[in-house]
Amino acid sequence: MASAATPPSTLPPPPRDFHGLYRHVAPHMEALNRFMRAEVENFEPEIREMAAYCLDTTGKRLRPTLVFVSGWRGPGVFSDDLVRAAGVVEMVHLATLVHDDIMDRAEIRRSRRTASREYGPDAAVLLGDALFSQALHIASQFPTTEVCRLVSESTRKVCSGEIMQTLRRRDITISLAEYRRMIDLKTAELFRVSCFLGARLAGYAPAFVTAADAFGRHLGIAYQIYDDLVDFAGEEERVGKTLGTDLATGKLTLPLMLLLERVSPEEKAAIIAALRGGQPLGLAASRQRMRDLGIGPGVVQAIEDELAHAAARLAPFSGEPATPLMTQLGDMLRSQVTALLPSAGAV
Amino acid sequence: MASAATPPSTLPPPPRDFHGLYRHVAPHMEALNRFMRAEVENFEPEIREMAAYCLDTTGKRLRPTLVFVSGWRGPGVFSDDLVRAAGVVEMVHLATLVHDDIMDRAEIRRSRRTASREYGPDAAVLLGDALFSQALHIASQFPTTEVCRLVSESTRKVCSGEIMQTLRRRDITISLAEYRRMIDLKTAELFRVSCFLGARLAGYAPAFVTAADAFGRHLGIAYQIYDDLVDFAGEEERVGKTLGTDLATGKLTLPLMLLLERVSPEEKAAIIAALRGGQPLGLAASRQRMRDLGIGPGVVQAIEDELAHAAARLAPFSGEPATPLMTQLGDMLRSQVTALLPSAGAV
Repeated sequence: MASAATPPSTLPPPPRDFHGLYRHVAPHMEALNRFMRAEVENFEPEIREMAAYCLDTTGKRLRPTLVFVSGWRGPGVFSDDLVRAAGVVEMVHLATLVHDDIMDRAEIRRSRRTASREYGPDAAVLLGDALFSQALHIASQFPTTEVCRLVSESTRKVCSGEIMQTLRRRDITISLAEYRRMIDLKTAELFRVSCFLGARLAGYAPAFVTAADAFGRHLGIAYQIYDDLVDFAGEEERVGKTLGTDLATGKLTLPLMLLLERVSPEEKAAIIAALRGGQPLGLAASRQRMRDLGIGPGVVQAIEDELAHAAARLAPFSGEPATPLMTQLGDMLRSQVTALLPSAGAV
Repeated sequence: MASAATPPSTLPPPPRDFHGLYRHVAPHMEALNRFMRAEVENFEPEIREMAAYCLDTTGKRLRPTLVFVSGWRGPGVFSDDLVRAAGVVEMVHLATLVHDDIMDRAEIRRSRRTASREYGPDAAVLLGDALFSQALHIASQFPTTEVCRLVSESTRKVCSGEIMQTLRRRDITISLAEYRRMIDLKTAELFRVSCFLGARLAGYAPAFVTAADAFGRHLGIAYQIYDDLVDFAGEEERVGKTLGTDLATGKLTLPLMLLLERVSPEEKAAIIAALRGGQPLGLAASRQRMRDLGIGPGVVQAIEDELAHAAARLAPFSGEPATPLMTQLGDMLRSQVTALLPSAGAV
């Protein structure tokens, strides 16, 4: 088992087949899909069609997967509580997507029109609010206030991270520590709480719940760095969302930060001027520069570091049923990075 | 005591002095102001200044007043639960204002810049989300999930009402029943839950809690009709917010609905064409037409009807300490209407 000090290169290579993991979570995931379809009926009749559009089941369901995997107790063990908790975190996430797409002026998400494009930005603001509210309403159906308390706090942190990033668009003075804090809040927070809730609701001992919480946080940071890399290196058709929006909206992410570190002072000044002037950087041009300068390995290293930390937190719990599945999640992300950048120097 | 069948004209004239009511709620209101200032510290450091801007204490604190009045048990009876519940509903309300002002492109609220104008609409979307989240986080600090459950459901309904109104801008086919449903959701719902929570947390018997709930709903509908009237008839300097936004954004409210009923077919066609074409109606011109056609009395009658229903629900509970204060709230609204339209024909 990897520890925090283990160099990422000694981690096992990613398995080629993750069907085991999907098969394991399938009963819970199918129950979640039924749960989300039934949730549509809890919205006022006049907005049900819009709610259904946002709750559509074509998403990756990453956060529910975290809940189900962290709460895994063995084959045949089914828990309605896990399904409900997964519904809460997924609905919070879908609400944030609706609002993110307004701000990013994104038109396409999951290969179809965003809610903002479909219903207009004004209705999308309110629709996101209704989804947030309903997520907390589901959370309030647990016997105690714990889920409400944790999820409402996480949601506030997610929004705070997004605010920081929004207010600092086109600001090239952002430090690596500040970038890390922003992605910790805007992404890792909901990963963290998903893993916490899964382990906790499945009745795991407090020490494992704490480890699952930390695992989720590191995995979330790794995932967001990967997502920022996709925005540079992905192909729009394959990923199914508008790419290059970070560059177009002047969001400073790790790939761009590394690029700025490595270019000549003249090129740096030109990029900064374009960012500050509100002009989009030429996406193709900067992708080419990323490749020329070998930015890929630096970004991949940052992802690997987080995955190593995540694995290290689980190391003392190798005997728990959930641990192998959680470890597989880290491996899956690593294999996605590899698929994106067959050689780390490709971007 | 008025009953639902009592003609509004037989209701007692509004008292000239409401200091009694303000004096009664003052200890709770001062505690709320301290509570809201302390709440700022619970936001992430990077967004505290923005949160403080939104939680500023210059608002009317209408919904907290409803909580305190409905939960009134007598002089010297102080309840932290009432303060916390008031903090929840006020923070939900402030969040909706932040989002409303984005959609209405309003620049001024309470005689200063809106959050949207101050921080930009993108940050304001997220700031409203953070306020919503924190409101639910406060709600989760009660011993049971009841407050979370009620407030999250109310918040979803408020958003649904706003969505309906947003999607039907410039739509002149809205019926009176549809208008009523929209204001019931977008405004009366939070009034209703404020009164419910006040009475319930103060330990009143279920029958009174139900009556307080219904009282709050009717008062909320009356208040929204009044607010729609202010948008036509108020003076910007005195009211402290951008007026005429309903007309400018094509929102069909009761004054405009009555106007459309009473104008000639030609004038109706011209107003509809202006609304549908996305052109603002000339505010001054339509105000003048409202006066000429005596729209005021019809609007005032609708307000009086709701106030009569509200009073009727309290009639069986005249012996409860909260009842006289709640009745005063209805009287206050009536006196505000009178102040706005010294003669009901003025608009």
